Amino acid sequence: MKIYEFEGFPNPARIRIALAEKNLTDQVEFVSINVPKGEHQTPEFRAKNPSAAVPLLELEDGTCISECTAITEYLDHMNGDPTLTGKTPKERAKIHMMQRRAEAGLLDAVGTYFHHATPGLGKEIEVYQCSEWGQYQKDVAIKGMRYFDTVLADQDYIAGDKFSMADITAFAGLGFADFAQIAIPEDCANLKNWRARVASRPSLAA
Amino acid sequence: MKIYEFEGFPNPARIRIALAEKNLTDQVEFVSINVPKGEHQTPEFRAKNPSAAVPLLELEDGTCISECTAITEYLDHMNGDPTLTGKTPKERAKIHMMQRRAEAGLLDAVGTYFHHATPGLGKEIEVYQCSEWGQYQKDVAIKGMRYFDTVLADQDYIAGDKFSMADITAFAGLGFADFAQIAIPEDCANLKNWRARVASRPSLAA
Repeated sequence: MKIYEFEGFPNPARIRIALAEKNLTDQVEFVSINVPKGEHQTPEFRAKNPSAAVPLLELEDGTCISECTAITEYLDHMNGDPTLTGKTPKERAKIHMMQRRAEAGLLDAVGTYFHHATPGLGKEIEVYQCSEWGQYQKDVAIKGMRYFDTVLADQDYIAGDKFSMADITAFAGLGFADFAQIAIPEDCANLKNWRARVASRPSLAA
Repeated sequence: MKIYEFEGFPNPARIRIALAEKNLTDQVEFVSINVPKGEHQTPEFRAKNPSAAVPLLELEDGTCISECTAITEYLDHMNGDPTLTGKTPKERAKIHMMQRRAEAGLLDAVGTYFHHATPGLGKEIEVYQCSEWGQYQKDVAIKGMRYFDTVLADQDYIAGDKFSMADITAFAGLGFADFAQIAIPEDCANLKNWRARVASRPSLAA
């Protein structure tokens, strides 16, 4: 299978972590799509992903899967033993809930700030910007950090007592926040401790 | 189990359809949260769902699950026979991908237009509006309709040859579009035919 990505970008990073957690990195051919140069917007790439975004998973039969949650679902179920998306109905539900909160309230909020309220990837790529909305989303992201800090006061990981897809999303969100220069509030000690704990996992330390 | 909702609203409608598809409607106690009156913003409700939104699933043990995808994952796996979220890794991936596209490119886009570029639920509820972003999202929704029309030229349902969670999201998106007075483009015949076909399902005709 192939993964189209741009190394160092936050969403591709989510899939790199998921692959490492599942010991699948060696099974993947990585194809670089230079997003700052607009390679994600070519007709060839749009034919694979109409959303014109990385990462994208291409299977041997040509099936293309975009959206990190969908790619993670695929990778996690490949060996019949899901460890990132939950085994029981309740685990699945909690992980998907927290994953979505980590996207909407942190990672995507940072992304909207970056792409709309800063120069982002430059004028060639950011053809439409709504700076007011971008600024608003910065506040959403900081609120999200505070929310996850309270969550992590009572449990070790974002969706409970086990590492999951929700942690990957939140971790990538904080990485993007660093890049976009949105600081974690000083008093969010639980969030900072969790981040250090996640960063020390073999899948991330590699 | 309990579902907190406000009848007729687009996201609660997704769960009503999922429940009917799974023959679970009779097992649920529905609790009405009057969103236009702000009942979703009370401290009591926020303790159950910090995102202050309906629908919300509350299990017998008190576990609260928000986010439609998460609730649907729970309901779909209750009997060990998932029919809405896919059985194989590839099915799961395609359904989650298309579900997310139906959210971001249609349902949520309509929602952002409604809440930001129209009076929405009124001044008491819509305490912050960014009308420029709302107008932009109207165009996103129409582009989404055109995208799904092309998808449905080649297959019967949004994620392939079977009805799934992705159809539910897109169907609710069109319902919200009606309410927000965003018309389906005249030439989107595939989308209109699909909508009629979905509307005739027992889970929706009831």
